[in-house]
Amino acid sequence: MSLSELQEQLLPDIEVHLKFFLDSQDFNGSQVLKHMLAYHMGWEINDPNSSGHGKRLRPLLVLLCAGALDLDIESIMSGAISLEFLHNFTLIHDDIEDNSPLRHGRPTVWKKWGIPQAINAGDALLSIAQLSMLSLHDTLGDSAAALATKRLNQVFLQLTRGQYLDISFEETDEISPEIYYEMINGKTAALIALATSLCAVVTDTSSSVQSSLFEFGQSLGIAFQIQDDILGIWGDAELTGKSASSDILTHKKSLPIIYGLAHSSPFRASWGEKDLLSADVVRMMDQLKDCGALDYARSQAETYTQKAFSALENFSFEGNTYSQALYELAEKLLIRQS
Amino acid sequence: MSLSELQEQLLPDIEVHLKFFLDSQDFNGSQVLKHMLAYHMGWEINDPNSSGHGKRLRPLLVLLCAGALDLDIESIMSGAISLEFLHNFTLIHDDIEDNSPLRHGRPTVWKKWGIPQAINAGDALLSIAQLSMLSLHDTLGDSAAALATKRLNQVFLQLTRGQYLDISFEETDEISPEIYYEMINGKTAALIALATSLCAVVTDTSSSVQSSLFEFGQSLGIAFQIQDDILGIWGDAELTGKSASSDILTHKKSLPIIYGLAHSSPFRASWGEKDLLSADVVRMMDQLKDCGALDYARSQAETYTQKAFSALENFSFEGNTYSQALYELAEKLLIRQS
Repeated sequence: MSLSELQEQLLPDIEVHLKFFLDSQDFNGSQVLKHMLAYHMGWEINDPNSSGHGKRLRPLLVLLCAGALDLDIESIMSGAISLEFLHNFTLIHDDIEDNSPLRHGRPTVWKKWGIPQAINAGDALLSIAQLSMLSLHDTLGDSAAALATKRLNQVFLQLTRGQYLDISFEETDEISPEIYYEMINGKTAALIALATSLCAVVTDTSSSVQSSLFEFGQSLGIAFQIQDDILGIWGDAELTGKSASSDILTHKKSLPIIYGLAHSSPFRASWGEKDLLSADVVRMMDQLKDCGALDYARSQAETYTQKAFSALENFSFEGNTYSQALYELAEKLLIRQS
Repeated sequence: MSLSELQEQLLPDIEVHLKFFLDSQDFNGSQVLKHMLAYHMGWEINDPNSSGHGKRLRPLLVLLCAGALDLDIESIMSGAISLEFLHNFTLIHDDIEDNSPLRHGRPTVWKKWGIPQAINAGDALLSIAQLSMLSLHDTLGDSAAALATKRLNQVFLQLTRGQYLDISFEETDEISPEIYYEMINGKTAALIALATSLCAVVTDTSSSVQSSLFEFGQSLGIAFQIQDDILGIWGDAELTGKSASSDILTHKKSLPIIYGLAHSSPFRASWGEKDLLSADVVRMMDQLKDCGALDYARSQAETYTQKAFSALENFSFEGNTYSQALYELAEKLLIRQS
């Protein structure tokens, strides 16, 4: 089976389990709170042409990696959906912290219900992520449930460290590449690495396979984020759905920009200007290219992409459908234009 | 030993474990995030006369109940401190949601570091609460750790339901007593009930003892909250540290006020007025008394106090120091003037 065939089979199954788990929680007199969560997950929308939600990448990775190890996919399902709930909890809080009014073309939770209710709705979704991970008890036993939930919360703490750094970047222009990597590792890569290694961790697979799965996810996450940074400046607006160079306009401290601030005085001077016009943005894109920021970011993305593929070779087996699909998925994510 | 002797022994031990657990987490390049948590927990303060933190009531209840059951107190310690971390996580987020600038006489986390960092700091403290509960693994094994963490997150979801109701009360004057009880059960009583029953749950104590411990905590929590509501209107300002009738001025929907809105048209009319003066507040206090709101709240507090004491009799043993201390603590909390 190809990746798209596997996706056709797994994604509806993931969606059913996500909905069922939320539905099985007790909301009593607080049905509006439940509605907020369902809305954020993309299930209560009026536009039939919009899926209203993301790619469910994290649970998909959990299931594909389970398949690659020849493990029972259904037995890890509640762990897979836990990571999707956790990811969505971070989005609800991130949207408040970043002051973002829209997600998937719809008003964000805080924009619709106000900041106090949105903070609390994020918290509620987090409790559901935890309960879902603890449900591994039913399929894999207490020891697996406790260990997986411990990993979940270690990654959760790391997420908050990454988010702390990201917010604090707003106040400084001097950011070292090391701190940038700590930030994206926390914000993006740690959770992807948990998705790829979760199944191996809870089934006590050999530590070398665990390490390869972790390395695969971590490198994939980092390469994915750097690719995102590149597209945020040089991406085709029509493909990305964002205005071109939007990261320059929003003053986002992405990798090329951090590099430019450190290596180009013309870029640094432009960065300090207020009310940028289109012509300024075009000039700044050139300044970044001239100082080598694009080449640097590309070479970093390439390095981590290669790391991801090498790690993948260590645990995937020829002829295994899921291994093949993981290759396809990684290629699609890393060599994307949007 | 009396309650105060036991407190002298247990509270410093709780404090040491709280600090040690936070210190043992990896904060890497995010030391300021760690500082925010330590600040909120009351450990980084300049005023030597201020403890800067609350009473550590929840972990104290865990340990006293463990003692009352003749169980090893140290073995449940990481569960006890988990509840204190969870409680403090809710305070960080509540302070943002309620727009409160001060706690224990110091600026709240959001007031000091801004809303985005404060939301994130609350999240970080929550991950630590979870990790601490999962550490029960080391003393009581996987099964206890998984079960306790499940209970923690069920209560956590209930907390968010209570908080949802509390925030939504701002938009309506028609609140039934049933919904009020659901709100305070979620916001206050559920966590106190977990504190009193935790030890019995994880050590598989007989279900009748578990029920009595749960009932004790739940009734204690409800009676405590109603007492708080009474003091918020008729409390002695010098003893409570709040201005008298502050709940009328801040339009807090506490039990006497909900009763007054339902049963007194003069009070309802006053409630709708803007810019209340001292004379208005005195008149409104009388309106509440006249319609029976104070008597009603007192009788409700009395009912739950009696329930708490009856439940306590079911699991405490004469001659057991900890049982005796629980009586003393419950009396102190329920018959307090501040």
